[in-house]
Amino acid sequence: MGLIYPVILCGGSGTRLWPSSRKDKPKPFLPLIGERTLFEATLARTADRTRFAEPVIVAGAAHLGHVRAQAAGFAGSRIIVEPMAQNTAAAIGLAAARLPEDAVMLVCPSDHHIADVPAFTAAAAEAATLAAQGWLVALGITPTAPETGFGYIRRGERLGAGYTVEQFVEKPDFVTASGFLADGRYSWNGGIFVFRAGTYMEELAHHRPDIADPVREAVAQGADEGAIFHPEPSAFGRIAGQSVDYAVMEKTDRAAMVPVAMGWSDIGNWHALRDVRKGDGEGNRAAGRVELVDCRNVLAQSDGPRISAIGLQDIAIVVDGDEVLVTTMDGAQKVGKLSGAANQ
Amino acid sequence: MGLIYPVILCGGSGTRLWPSSRKDKPKPFLPLIGERTLFEATLARTADRTRFAEPVIVAGAAHLGHVRAQAAGFAGSRIIVEPMAQNTAAAIGLAAARLPEDAVMLVCPSDHHIADVPAFTAAAAEAATLAAQGWLVALGITPTAPETGFGYIRRGERLGAGYTVEQFVEKPDFVTASGFLADGRYSWNGGIFVFRAGTYMEELAHHRPDIADPVREAVAQGADEGAIFHPEPSAFGRIAGQSVDYAVMEKTDRAAMVPVAMGWSDIGNWHALRDVRKGDGEGNRAAGRVELVDCRNVLAQSDGPRISAIGLQDIAIVVDGDEVLVTTMDGAQKVGKLSGAANQ
Repeated sequence: MGLIYPVILCGGSGTRLWPSSRKDKPKPFLPLIGERTLFEATLARTADRTRFAEPVIVAGAAHLGHVRAQAAGFAGSRIIVEPMAQNTAAAIGLAAARLPEDAVMLVCPSDHHIADVPAFTAAAAEAATLAAQGWLVALGITPTAPETGFGYIRRGERLGAGYTVEQFVEKPDFVTASGFLADGRYSWNGGIFVFRAGTYMEELAHHRPDIADPVREAVAQGADEGAIFHPEPSAFGRIAGQSVDYAVMEKTDRAAMVPVAMGWSDIGNWHALRDVRKGDGEGNRAAGRVELVDCRNVLAQSDGPRISAIGLQDIAIVVDGDEVLVTTMDGAQKVGKLSGAANQ
Repeated sequence: MGLIYPVILCGGSGTRLWPSSRKDKPKPFLPLIGERTLFEATLARTADRTRFAEPVIVAGAAHLGHVRAQAAGFAGSRIIVEPMAQNTAAAIGLAAARLPEDAVMLVCPSDHHIADVPAFTAAAAEAATLAAQGWLVALGITPTAPETGFGYIRRGERLGAGYTVEQFVEKPDFVTASGFLADGRYSWNGGIFVFRAGTYMEELAHHRPDIADPVREAVAQGADEGAIFHPEPSAFGRIAGQSVDYAVMEKTDRAAMVPVAMGWSDIGNWHALRDVRKGDGEGNRAAGRVELVDCRNVLAQSDGPRISAIGLQDIAIVVDGDEVLVTTMDGAQKVGKLSGAANQ
């Protein structure tokens, strides 16, 4: 088994963890859990060079400064600058078209949290074995709650350490999600994929030649600038972007999955971030100048002003720059629709 | 019936409505309800010069700037600067000792809200009639809830438009307060008093000569500076300060009360302020840059940064300078004990 090639996707609009996450410095580049940013933690998870090759990072030009600064500690990182956002099928294509056909890619979002890194590494290795055989493998996160915000994967037959995929399922309603949990055959689709670069490009060319061809052209006509690669913009601009899930994974008959329980969170909102952070005796998570009186399970963080709170339960208070957000945990999913978050 | 002399007391520590109210600019000098500050509204209530004489304002040196600026619109206002805070018995004494003995004083805190000014004016006039006969009259606020944060007045026999006072009662517990409400003979003691200057000084001299004598001495040896009077500090400094309630009202056998329902609030905390302000259709009170989503009965005010809130009910959010306060309505009574409020 050769080295696995990490491909780190740095998309993300930065609205759901507003006001900390902003358009010009979105979620991956913030130290939301501990000292490291989510992007740095993603790089660190694949830093063992006996298992993983140097990472390929796909990012937009707007975030290149953050990417370069934060990837500086990971020698050999290569960066592909998307000329414009074209969703994940094309972004992954840029990396795949640059890698050797036999390279096994591990595609990772850069803004997720994984508590159990050994479980992640083990699952990636199992998926890589299947990928080397020509499968397009999704890591299937063992669900811990009837979440309605994720897509699900229904597994089929046993296949090595994993399973074939019987079906990718759209975000379900609560009752359906509860049924999935009880059923036991469903996993969350966490957007982590493992496949040969050549297999991916074949499948992309088969199902979405209108994406595969411009991707190849943009790569062929692109320009290197040290460790940074600039795909040719006009070819890439012709693409009608789509997610890798829709464009490839749901269409291919070579989809497989490897189940894994690894303390995963997409930190999709302040509620999820509260749950990932370690609380004190009252379940409070405070960062910055914070005084909490009679509070329980409160997330309070400030980049400057002091927060004083009394009597709250299951509330998030976030002070960042000239924005003050106060939301219930249930309300956290609506943060992206606030004027401040939407009109950045 | 001659003119009534308003005596406006500008004490107050500024902790309970922190962080808006601060030591150097406490509650009376803030526009908490509408455009006018509470102090300005207090002056405006006694601005009819066919009923009221020019006001006498008693204030500390620290707040003289606010007092002069905000009293500028009320011609003829006179200011007595307390050399140091010595509580209300002495503060009122300074005004009483400066006024003619027959002057009927209307002593008003400067940080209360009165919705029904005609009711206030009528009660003051009735109290003045009793005061002219030698009574020390408290306005007794008709209670609307079993408040445990106020002292109560139990009325005795009919006396003109009012009653004799049978007893001043300390802040009761909730069960006792509920009993008071059911009883019907109890009023809140709102700290508004009407008496002849001479009567007050006689009673003060009788019950607390250790306050009355230094007050007279401080006034006799004080210095005029235009409309401002500076009592002599060393005499005033000898006083062991006490409230007018303890020092005089509870001790005298000439105490009377006039009941009045006038939409009174001492705006003792953010909960009380929320209730006094007019809400929108959802009961929210927003001031400054505020966006509220799925919120009910929320008070949100900011002096700059934007507040965005989701899903809250009966919560106060106050942003002032570099302080952010978030409290339940129940928790509002603990604001004064927060580090920020206590250590100004």
